Amino acid sequence: MIYLDNAATTAPDREALARAETFLSENYYNPSAIYGGGFSVHTALKEAREGLLSRIADPAKFELIFTSGGTESDDHAVFSGARRGNAVTTKGEHAAVFESVTELKNRGIEPRFAPLLPDGRVDGGALIDLVDEKTSLVSVVHVNNETGAVNDIFALARAVKQKNPRALFHSDGVQAFGKIPVRLSGDIDLYSVSAHKIGGLKGTGALFKRKNLQIAPFLYGGGQEGGMRSGTENVFGIMVFAFAAEKKFASLKEDGERIARLREMLWEGLDHGIFTRLSPENGSPYILSTSASGMRGEVLVRMLWERGVVAGTGSACSSRKRYSRVLAACGYGEDVLDGVLRWSFSPATTKEEVIEAAKHANEAASSFKDKL
Amino acid sequence: MIYLDNAATTAPDREALARAETFLSENYYNPSAIYGGGFSVHTALKEAREGLLSRIADPAKFELIFTSGGTESDDHAVFSGARRGNAVTTKGEHAAVFESVTELKNRGIEPRFAPLLPDGRVDGGALIDLVDEKTSLVSVVHVNNETGAVNDIFALARAVKQKNPRALFHSDGVQAFGKIPVRLSGDIDLYSVSAHKIGGLKGTGALFKRKNLQIAPFLYGGGQEGGMRSGTENVFGIMVFAFAAEKKFASLKEDGERIARLREMLWEGLDHGIFTRLSPENGSPYILSTSASGMRGEVLVRMLWERGVVAGTGSACSSRKRYSRVLAACGYGEDVLDGVLRWSFSPATTKEEVIEAAKHANEAASSFKDKL
Repeated sequence: MIYLDNAATTAPDREALARAETFLSENYYNPSAIYGGGFSVHTALKEAREGLLSRIADPAKFELIFTSGGTESDDHAVFSGARRGNAVTTKGEHAAVFESVTELKNRGIEPRFAPLLPDGRVDGGALIDLVDEKTSLVSVVHVNNETGAVNDIFALARAVKQKNPRALFHSDGVQAFGKIPVRLSGDIDLYSVSAHKIGGLKGTGALFKRKNLQIAPFLYGGGQEGGMRSGTENVFGIMVFAFAAEKKFASLKEDGERIARLREMLWEGLDHGIFTRLSPENGSPYILSTSASGMRGEVLVRMLWERGVVAGTGSACSSRKRYSRVLAACGYGEDVLDGVLRWSFSPATTKEEVIEAAKHANEAASSFKDKL
Repeated sequence: MIYLDNAATTAPDREALARAETFLSENYYNPSAIYGGGFSVHTALKEAREGLLSRIADPAKFELIFTSGGTESDDHAVFSGARRGNAVTTKGEHAAVFESVTELKNRGIEPRFAPLLPDGRVDGGALIDLVDEKTSLVSVVHVNNETGAVNDIFALARAVKQKNPRALFHSDGVQAFGKIPVRLSGDIDLYSVSAHKIGGLKGTGALFKRKNLQIAPFLYGGGQEGGMRSGTENVFGIMVFAFAAEKKFASLKEDGERIARLREMLWEGLDHGIFTRLSPENGSPYILSTSASGMRGEVLVRMLWERGVVAGTGSACSSRKRYSRVLAACGYGEDVLDGVLRWSFSPATTKEEVIEAAKHANEAASSFKDKL
């Protein structure tokens, strides 16, 4: 299979799995246990935490809470961060932020959604206009998971703090972490990441938190994760995450440049009489969103699967709805929204694969058209 | 190593890991993806869910929410179940229930804690006395994780419903599931289980929920788990859980009888001039709590580790506190509380191991005494 749905999930990294195997066999101890075996697992988790933390943050200024994935990280940030007044976010958020901010309404906090620019970035001016003295949380996705558009969260966070220094700033970094260069600034309070988008396992993630920032715990119990997230640690998942990240960050820049070329190569290979490009050139190299106007993306995805090519229609998490809420907010009409095909890459993606994928997409779309 | 700390965590089952391996290699697709690969993972999860559900419940009457572990299951049950008035629980709860019920105080709900009998079971009469017309949730641990005492949750749930039919009844079944026979009755509304206590992985669990019972979601986002628990499913963890449970339930009765004999054999092997027994004979076969009065259990645990024998001091999750809150609630004095050694078994435990473990425990305790 030519797998180009890496924004939905990635194949677990074989090397990371092999390195973590000991935590399934010899080192299965509970990291809270007070004997040698427990200590050594505890130490491994500490090293994993420090490694992951240092990839994008200054460990003197940030700390990291291991979570069960991007959704938990986002929910924790939203529900602990939005304590009163209103919460400002964007129409381009992943469902984990969009739905949790929407839920705030039932908890007496007003949700506010800033509009998008056509490429999927938030309209920064409009976002800042929504922030007032009653805003307790602002949440802006770093890389839009449908178009790959990159929000300048650092500039936005600074502008938010200038208007209301007490508002917390959270960003969903799930499609950014391990893919584009990130260095958390002091204006960012909370930052969510996920393991399974970068060769780790489903069921593991983390929430980066500015040190000294007091937030409510998400899970109450034995007091793990500094009391923020009780429950026996998902040791195997965390170790695979740390090892996969180590590898991704070692060649992040070169991979990004190479994948950006492959993304353009795929775009060039697609029949421009059929496919429209929705992703900006300056977006994440790892996502190319296209649309075969007037066709059903869903049908194309299945035709491609039969041909051994795997692409997506957009967010796998919202795939049960006909249209993408996010792309609709970019201003596209029904014909474009219906035909969305999202291609998403990993560092393992090859030139041959994208050329082959484009060929199949053109053929599938043509045969689809012929049947209309 | 002779591993007798299985109530803290268990070695992942090798067969279950091998059967689930395909979900790390070929079948890594996102179960929400709308192409063949996504469908097949989705189907595997469906089968895992049905299998786990049928082990202890009637699938016509119960459903199952996959969670990140026992703590999340407990927290979800407590925070969604205790909606107003007061919440009644016991002094014998695992921290996941104890701390979340305690937290309810900050949310305007009165926590009430029923006292324990000396063996670790809740005092049923006292529990029912605490239930009134304002009680929205009652939570009683099924098997006490420190003494192994088994609460008759079915009789307690019935008595609760007779007094207040609107009160929800939750039980933490983490130390019961896959270890003692369980069949959920209609009086039980919610039941928490964990994978890593029965050969599954840390980071996976489930919350059994009576069908038609409406509770608030725990994670908001893409709508997975019937909208109750959004986030990409922890596919590998769930599949290992289902396979491990399948195996445990296939020989649950025979294993339980055999392990009960080993538990008694270990007890017989211990020097009764040194060790006191805290666990009741009619408790879970898998837990034998003992105390070497006047000694420090912590020190004994480390001495045993050096000798290749792994035991615990009680709940690994609360191991940072000197005394066990649960055993203190059983009425033991400081000398007993200080010297607690908890032995916990798995179906893989052998006769030779328990004989050897008792010998080492006697020797370690004697040498410890000599040093005093």
